[in-house]
Amino acid sequence: MKNEFNINIPETEKPRVIIVGGGFAGVNLVRKLKGKNVQVVLFDRYNYHTFQPLLYQVSTAGLEPDSVAGPLRKIIESIPDFHFRMIKVLGVDTKNNKLHTLVGDIEFDFLAIATGARMNYFGNEEIMKNAMPMKQLPHALDLRSYLFQQLEQATLKSNPDEVKQLLTFIVVGGGPTGVELAGALAELKRHVLPKDYPTLDLAQMRIILVEGMNSLLPQMSAKAGKITHKYLSKMGVDIRLGQLINNYDGNYVTFKDGHTLQAQTVIWAAGVKGNPLEGLPVESIYKGRIVTNEYNQVFKSDNEYFNNIFALGDVAMIRTKDLPEGYPMLAPVAIQQGRHAARNIVNAISNKNLKPFRYVNKGALATVGRNKAIGDLPGNIFIAGFVGWVIWLFVHLMYLIGFRNKLVVFTNWVWNYFSYDRGIRLIVRPYVKQNDPLTKELAEEYLEK
Amino acid sequence: MKNEFNINIPETEKPRVIIVGGGFAGVNLVRKLKGKNVQVVLFDRYNYHTFQPLLYQVSTAGLEPDSVAGPLRKIIESIPDFHFRMIKVLGVDTKNNKLHTLVGDIEFDFLAIATGARMNYFGNEEIMKNAMPMKQLPHALDLRSYLFQQLEQATLKSNPDEVKQLLTFIVVGGGPTGVELAGALAELKRHVLPKDYPTLDLAQMRIILVEGMNSLLPQMSAKAGKITHKYLSKMGVDIRLGQLINNYDGNYVTFKDGHTLQAQTVIWAAGVKGNPLEGLPVESIYKGRIVTNEYNQVFKSDNEYFNNIFALGDVAMIRTKDLPEGYPMLAPVAIQQGRHAARNIVNAISNKNLKPFRYVNKGALATVGRNKAIGDLPGNIFIAGFVGWVIWLFVHLMYLIGFRNKLVVFTNWVWNYFSYDRGIRLIVRPYVKQNDPLTKELAEEYLEK
Repeated sequence: MKNEFNINIPETEKPRVIIVGGGFAGVNLVRKLKGKNVQVVLFDRYNYHTFQPLLYQVSTAGLEPDSVAGPLRKIIESIPDFHFRMIKVLGVDTKNNKLHTLVGDIEFDFLAIATGARMNYFGNEEIMKNAMPMKQLPHALDLRSYLFQQLEQATLKSNPDEVKQLLTFIVVGGGPTGVELAGALAELKRHVLPKDYPTLDLAQMRIILVEGMNSLLPQMSAKAGKITHKYLSKMGVDIRLGQLINNYDGNYVTFKDGHTLQAQTVIWAAGVKGNPLEGLPVESIYKGRIVTNEYNQVFKSDNEYFNNIFALGDVAMIRTKDLPEGYPMLAPVAIQQGRHAARNIVNAISNKNLKPFRYVNKGALATVGRNKAIGDLPGNIFIAGFVGWVIWLFVHLMYLIGFRNKLVVFTNWVWNYFSYDRGIRLIVRPYVKQNDPLTKELAEEYLEK
Repeated sequence: MKNEFNINIPETEKPRVIIVGGGFAGVNLVRKLKGKNVQVVLFDRYNYHTFQPLLYQVSTAGLEPDSVAGPLRKIIESIPDFHFRMIKVLGVDTKNNKLHTLVGDIEFDFLAIATGARMNYFGNEEIMKNAMPMKQLPHALDLRSYLFQQLEQATLKSNPDEVKQLLTFIVVGGGPTGVELAGALAELKRHVLPKDYPTLDLAQMRIILVEGMNSLLPQMSAKAGKITHKYLSKMGVDIRLGQLINNYDGNYVTFKDGHTLQAQTVIWAAGVKGNPLEGLPVESIYKGRIVTNEYNQVFKSDNEYFNNIFALGDVAMIRTKDLPEGYPMLAPVAIQQGRHAARNIVNAISNKNLKPFRYVNKGALATVGRNKAIGDLPGNIFIAGFVGWVIWLFVHLMYLIGFRNKLVVFTNWVWNYFSYDRGIRLIVRPYVKQNDPLTKELAEEYLEK
């Protein structure tokens, strides 16, 4: 079967730039290559770009999944000799400048690896199997389904202990994703669920935010962590700092100190790791990420770097004396690296010197709910509350891909704000959790033709 | 496990009205029972109401799935003693006025069966297995995924015959669903795909509409069928009238006259059948629907009807001398019956006479694309073109449930109209078709945690 397929990219005189991954780095690189004399081939296993910072709003019924994703073909639309292929990339052959894919090989003149990150379960298979990730659109949809499945199941229980177990939501990780998700769950509990489930004892519903460090948002300023803590506590989130999780078997979370907590839903937002391509030299990988020089060229051996292979975004780590652990795995870094790499690739083609990448930190923002956000802006400026929230909204709308998405997200936000509603509390496809026979029965019912 | 569950509906003095099914009939019945002195329990296997007339726009990337569905709990929100349970109903015990559900039995004073319709494959299991249905939200999403999977796969084929097979879309059934879907596919082919797939030979893409009768929209006026035929032909739809399909094995459609057609995608819009509840007397069922008198009370035996069991909407057939085959299975009939049944149930409680149901035909509308719709209005008025299209838009927005949905759908329509775009061409969850290894591999890739 496989050999009937063909990558079908025309051979031209122009240098071929292959980009693996349509995330923030890949998409920004593609855009900046527009109008340059190159052939561009973009590979991704999805046919869309995901705006990951808003996935948590999909999970909590605030936004439609299709609003935070944009078709990748739209980005290359009408650019001559720009190609997209939705196909799995298996690895790279650095000696022959070839990429292996599920349907065959393709040669490149330049390669940009922008394969991003994946969930990090720190090697624990049981957690991987039983906890719910928050990285891709289907994950966000699964969580939305499961959240409302738990609520529907709870209405069918008379034993308060069982209700409590169904309605315990543990969010692991006090970074932006965990904090924003916990806040959104707390708002759902406060504004939406009492109307939807008047007979349910929502006092049994617990949102527990677990963080291993001793403050929330440990990557941001101490003040940001403190104010976030105050906001979330007030909203009813049970915050547990300095707590590490050893295991989750689907029913019980076991903490490092030995105590356990019963919960049906554990959301894993405790960290990500690089998702490098196969075929690179072992020495290119450090802590799961691809080591590069400050031109984003991939480390080869000793002091050598590949001239024509770049790594960008979360998967990449610029590792220099001043920067031994690279830049943080953040969307703004990926965006800036994507844009920067376009210039460097063009320079390389015309034998000009490459320019080193310098991350311009424009600050960090996180929101925990309506009128509540915190931000560390450049120049040690700290913002919080309503002002921060408006800036957060504005920045997220601005970076959202595509005008249609901006429009629909804005419409939903206005609606959510004034109605205190979350209109999208639908279980479109039930999430099937192991050892949960009712969800399985439900799912089979749904799949009926 | 099962016996730990409990339906948990409080016992009150008020008469209990149980409604099975949250479609057009069920939802309108619930709404009209608001403020009456009854306890209402609504059962559905989904937690949302689906606006089925717009599903085809979900399949063709014009609308977000969450825009054509509304949470059922929203409808009963804040009405005291109105309850929703998302649980499978197994059957009815008419002797003891009890309903069997997956988690136990519940007694009723009044029962309204509004379980709607399901796809009718006319007993052909192979068609059921291989063709794609268009009835529920997950079906519409599967079709959207598969449509774009086929296009993506086609870019990986160099053999024109294989491309042709991938890009052949056969819509079976020339009723409103088939006509609207074929039109939307034709618009996609014309306005969106050439930009997205510049290197693909879209001349190979065929949209074939098959109808067993000798005209399209056979339930509407002859003029409507003719103009629709003209519209669709002009848009490039290959219409085949008077053709019946015997089988579809996943690769080849076999027609009754023996000829075959190769196609990867066959969409089954050839008809629906009633979806009655188990436990009713055999004599209550006629042609798959539940026979009722003109008060919507279910037929028991001879000339007897159940006093307190009603059937409404698609699943029901009012069968009288003047109306031997009942009203057609249409949304407006269901809406009117739901509203009407509320009045009759209230009358029955207060021992007043019931009122016979009379369907007020407000006309029928169908659209085939931008500025193009046809309608048979009351008083033999026929409309077509732009005027019909504006009326179609207006009527569909009006009947769409929930203000948020109206707002988002309107926003998307305005966007689609002026941009000629369909922004939602995402393969969020790949559709796995049997004997199609690449889709399976894709799906596994997507499900990665």
